[in-house]
Amino acid sequence: MNHIQFPADRKMDFIAIGRLCIDLNANEINRPMEETRTFTKYVGGSPANIAIGAARLGVKSGFIGKVSNDQMGRFITQYLTDHQIDTTNISVDRTGAVTGLAFTEIKSPEECSILMYRDNVADLKLAPGDVSEEYIKQSKALLISGTALSASPSREAVFLALEYARKHSTVVFFDLDYRPYSWAYTTDPAIYYSLAAEKCDVIIGTREEFDMMEQFTGNPGSNDEVTANKWFGCNAKIVVIKHGSNGSFAYTKTGQVFKGSIFKTKVLKTFGAGDSYASAFIYGLMQGWSIVRAMEFGSASASIVISKHSCSDAMPTVEEIVEFIAGSRKEEQISP
Amino acid sequence: MNHIQFPADRKMDFIAIGRLCIDLNANEINRPMEETRTFTKYVGGSPANIAIGAARLGVKSGFIGKVSNDQMGRFITQYLTDHQIDTTNISVDRTGAVTGLAFTEIKSPEECSILMYRDNVADLKLAPGDVSEEYIKQSKALLISGTALSASPSREAVFLALEYARKHSTVVFFDLDYRPYSWAYTTDPAIYYSLAAEKCDVIIGTREEFDMMEQFTGNPGSNDEVTANKWFGCNAKIVVIKHGSNGSFAYTKTGQVFKGSIFKTKVLKTFGAGDSYASAFIYGLMQGWSIVRAMEFGSASASIVISKHSCSDAMPTVEEIVEFIAGSRKEEQISP
Amino acid sequence: MNHIQFPADRKMDFIAIGRLCIDLNANEINRPMEETRTFTKYVGGSPANIAIGAARLGVKSGFIGKVSNDQMGRFITQYLTDHQIDTTNISVDRTGAVTGLAFTEIKSPEECSILMYRDNVADLKLAPGDVSEEYIKQSKALLISGTALSASPSREAVFLALEYARKHSTVVFFDLDYRPYSWAYTTDPAIYYSLAAEKCDVIIGTREEFDMMEQFTGNPGSNDEVTANKWFGCNAKIVVIKHGSNGSFAYTKTGQVFKGSIFKTKVLKTFGAGDSYASAFIYGLMQGWSIVRAMEFGSASASIVISKHSCSDAMPTVEEIVEFIAGSRKEEQISP
Amino acid sequence: MNHIQFPADRKMDFIAIGRLCIDLNANEINRPMEETRTFTKYVGGSPANIAIGAARLGVKSGFIGKVSNDQMGRFITQYLTDHQIDTTNISVDRTGAVTGLAFTEIKSPEECSILMYRDNVADLKLAPGDVSEEYIKQSKALLISGTALSASPSREAVFLALEYARKHSTVVFFDLDYRPYSWAYTTDPAIYYSLAAEKCDVIIGTREEFDMMEQFTGNPGSNDEVTANKWFGCNAKIVVIKHGSNGSFAYTKTGQVFKGSIFKTKVLKTFGAGDSYASAFIYGLMQGWSIVRAMEFGSASASIVISKHSCSDAMPTVEEIVEFIAGSRKEEQISP
Repeated sequence: MNHIQFPADRKMDFIAIGRLCIDLNANEINRPMEETRTFTKYVGGSPANIAIGAARLGVKSGFIGKVSNDQMGRFITQYLTDHQIDTTNISVDRTGAVTGLAFTEIKSPEECSILMYRDNVADLKLAPGDVSEEYIKQSKALLISGTALSASPSREAVFLALEYARKHSTVVFFDLDYRPYSWAYTTDPAIYYSLAAEKCDVIIGTREEFDMMEQFTGNPGSNDEVTANKWFGCNAKIVVIKHGSNGSFAYTKTGQVFKGSIFKTKVLKTFGAGDSYASAFIYGLMQGWSIVRAMEFGSASASIVISKHSCSDAMPTVEEIVEFIAGSRKEEQISP
Repeated sequence: MNHIQFPADRKMDFIAIGRLCIDLNANEINRPMEETRTFTKYVGGSPANIAIGAARLGVKSGFIGKVSNDQMGRFITQYLTDHQIDTTNISVDRTGAVTGLAFTEIKSPEECSILMYRDNVADLKLAPGDVSEEYIKQSKALLISGTALSASPSREAVFLALEYARKHSTVVFFDLDYRPYSWAYTTDPAIYYSLAAEKCDVIIGTREEFDMMEQFTGNPGSNDEVTANKWFGCNAKIVVIKHGSNGSFAYTKTGQVFKGSIFKTKVLKTFGAGDSYASAFIYGLMQGWSIVRAMEFGSASASIVISKHSCSDAMPTVEEIVEFIAGSRKEEQISP
Repeated sequence: MNHIQFPADRKMDFIAIGRLCIDLNANEINRPMEETRTFTKYVGGSPANIAIGAARLGVKSGFIGKVSNDQMGRFITQYLTDHQIDTTNISVDRTGAVTGLAFTEIKSPEECSILMYRDNVADLKLAPGDVSEEYIKQSKALLISGTALSASPSREAVFLALEYARKHSTVVFFDLDYRPYSWAYTTDPAIYYSLAAEKCDVIIGTREEFDMMEQFTGNPGSNDEVTANKWFGCNAKIVVIKHGSNGSFAYTKTGQVFKGSIFKTKVLKTFGAGDSYASAFIYGLMQGWSIVRAMEFGSASASIVISKHSCSDAMPTVEEIVEFIAGSRKEEQISP
Repeated sequence: MNHIQFPADRKMDFIAIGRLCIDLNANEINRPMEETRTFTKYVGGSPANIAIGAARLGVKSGFIGKVSNDQMGRFITQYLTDHQIDTTNISVDRTGAVTGLAFTEIKSPEECSILMYRDNVADLKLAPGDVSEEYIKQSKALLISGTALSASPSREAVFLALEYARKHSTVVFFDLDYRPYSWAYTTDPAIYYSLAAEKCDVIIGTREEFDMMEQFTGNPGSNDEVTANKWFGCNAKIVVIKHGSNGSFAYTKTGQVFKGSIFKTKVLKTFGAGDSYASAFIYGLMQGWSIVRAMEFGSASASIVISKHSCSDAMPTVEEIVEFIAGSRKEEQISP
């Protein structure tokens, strides 16, 4: 057993809400973007990647989002449909918004950067009127992601989705995915991330992301247990805190802490690591696995994705992850 | 005893946060504004009026707000200072914002309207950086008001103030004061009012205001007890619901319900009734009075203000309210 | 004869286009606005004042403008109608714009200031679609004023009106009326004032206003003849340059220069001097008077207005101006 | 001789002002963009293409523009430098603007479309303060392009450049390049195109573009001579009107009309035809060629570019054009 009880008898397993965008990955790698000439187009955006990853693992997935009324928007919707994700709750913007773009630059495995196009993007036009109570009621789980909180009306759409999820006992995952460039003011992310996190069951983020959330409440030593207990005082049951190369730790409301596995891999780029981790970790929890096993599955998925050129296209199947783990050495749980 | 325990040993009794503006009341009454020619200038804005009312009753009050850098802003700050309100936490806008204006039109006692100037107003420029944790920590109570939630960065400033108030056990009053024209989208007020109300100790509003807040969660019969219990499930201890001429009811977390008094008065205009009620009701609670006595004091104060030309200037002293009550007949509590 | 030939056989004499707003003049004078308490409401705005002044002198006048859909807008339209100004081409804003306000503060006759409310104002929402070619074709003269050039779509509406006026030989007056606070960038007024002035027949402004217009073309010594000749190279026939207490000078395309009269008066405030001057000067030209006589009439009108509390309400009749001149001493023309 | 006298003794031959952007051309052609996967990056934007085309023909060229402070902006500046275009007057945006993008879709030679990213673009942030009088004074010719008129502050920068060009007798070319999606209101392009065209020496556009400019002034039969004479009444000496497959016609202030040549070619896409035409036509005029010869050179250049994948990269050299013409049949001048 694990620490999350998913409601039974729901039509869907998993719905993600928020950003749907396009990655344009430079085909010529190990050089600055000033010198690249061609790009390959992929579906991107943290919750999109997680939904694609989950679907590839066999999770019955859906998406609540908004796309532009153009070739880019239609490409995204078609891609999700082709990958067995329900798109009935993806609406089409009618205001002339565009699809967000992320041009990726891979100078070296350690030095990757992104050039974002985020003005007037369709994903942030998602509005409360686009969120269906019935749809959320029919799913076992809902995933929210921080970027959708960065602007109105997308922010309000997420808070409404949270309200519906709590009302109908749909389990809520929060992948923090904090991107400073999305926010106009430095004080706002802490305020809105906290208001959202109070309503979530599982919170996943880096130590730096949790630090950002605690800027007003105080946790001077960046103590993981202080962090986890703050959210256990609200609705959280599991808090996953990632410490980069020092590994990640899952804290539970029942007082346990688990250390995640780390796998050796040949890194092409770092993009997509968090999204693939989240999709496989969520998959594990939804299978009823132990937290340790779900974390291992997440780490293995991340290791696979960072060795490939894309994020969404590279999301592995269950068989690929199982095979990858079998060929690797794994780390141990540090505490019962 | 009553149902709210105020922290002892605080420098201040009461701090209001939010709107500071100017009322321009037509001197010629009982006619449309097209035909009025002269106006008299008063300090206005719901939390400003409540703070002025409280100060006039002897409550040691302060204000967290932002004023324009012009004659209007200086008039407001001077007026508050002259009325014994601490203005050290009122900052001055440096972006060219103006003071909000409310031109009032009194066609008849039953037909009053307001013409608002709310573009680029200084009060909504209040930002998280203007909110002092230390200041809130030093006060027994904090009052928030709905209009300050209607736009950024004022909205975030209020959420930060709430965070500080909860952290330091400062009692929070929420005067709903819902004004539809302040909001760009009809779905947003329910979302933000609810996020704020979850953190408040005492919530005061009309039945219509509570209905607005419940548009997504559902309370089809507009049942007061359903409403009150929803907030008792969060942090509320007292919920006051006003039913216009049918009187107001105070619900307590301990299961009691009290009906408020109604006084006969000669009505000049309806503006200011809610603000004067709130200031005298809060005064009563802070004196340790019973809820019934505090409600009666609130009703009497409201009856005095609606018989006069202004809101802020008309706020009564303790002696005036006591004298008014002595000359009136009062209604009874309907349930222990 | 004078230097402007007005087309005959037109239904209207004079149309002004642009700003319609409200002046709120402090009733308590000789003190800062922080200490004033009551205000009186008047119609204001430079082209509105000029149209009112012209109408009071018997000129058959109309207005192209936009007013707010509220009591302020209706007050303005009613006032103009009551003063025999055709309002058929004043449209009503439907976007929620407000009427611009000017709170006036008279600290002393020499120290007057204005507190403006110019956010989201209806007058700047005037759009090309609100400008009727037929209306401009039916008038002898059109007056434009600089503030209407300060923002879109009002700016484009004025350029379209100029296009129609030139097409149909309607004489165009340009009262520069430069107000720096109306402009977002310091470079823009010179650019747009120049593009407009190129199409005008009579240009009236202060030396400082003409300096502003020449910031890119160069006239280092602020030489009046250089200024006048620049515009005579376009479409201008008369250029009036005001030098404050040193008097004003009218230059003509035919090479003449005339010095205006100055009258002694008891000054209450300086507001409205330029508008009353323009209306009486235009009246004189339309009567076929000499430039000198028209300038004298303008100066006398200005002297009357600055001795009174309002601008629009104080605009004098022909009889009042004639009587005022009769009681005064006048200056001489300085050059043939 | 031809009809334009270029000033002698100038350091530069030719300066273009305005749009610098990126074309992302789908590598997979003859299919909708939903189905394309890779894109190649090129410098784009009409005035950029014309400057690149002119430079490749040996014209000493420069550019006045603004680029984003990122990899895209640096790519553009480097490309221009590599192609012998002076970039000293290209400034770098500091407000967080992005480079405009044009994703091109080639469904068939007849059906090409563009998906534009034009929100918050650096090229439209070009401001009057970025325009150097000295730079324009040192060039024989200046080229403006319509898109730069579509928004502030770029619009004002162009009007200021026109003012400097007229002041210093720099010949001004206006390539209309009307793109409806750039304009918020349908009435504005006619207004601003006309204000600009009044100050230009050579105006080049399609019949539809001239129709758009005449929407308020009237030319119901879309008569070319009416159009040309309108601009000859201002500052124009040559007006080129393109009638698609019916050929283009050059009208001169001296009353002549010339029909342009048409060449047969295998069309890959239609993008870039106008820009390559303009660059070679301007080159011809600057060589002192007859209008007919310059038009033939323009047509040949256009024929070359539309048979290739890119616009800017495909701009031909003098030798390539000469060789192309030698291998083709040409049309005749229709009237002396």
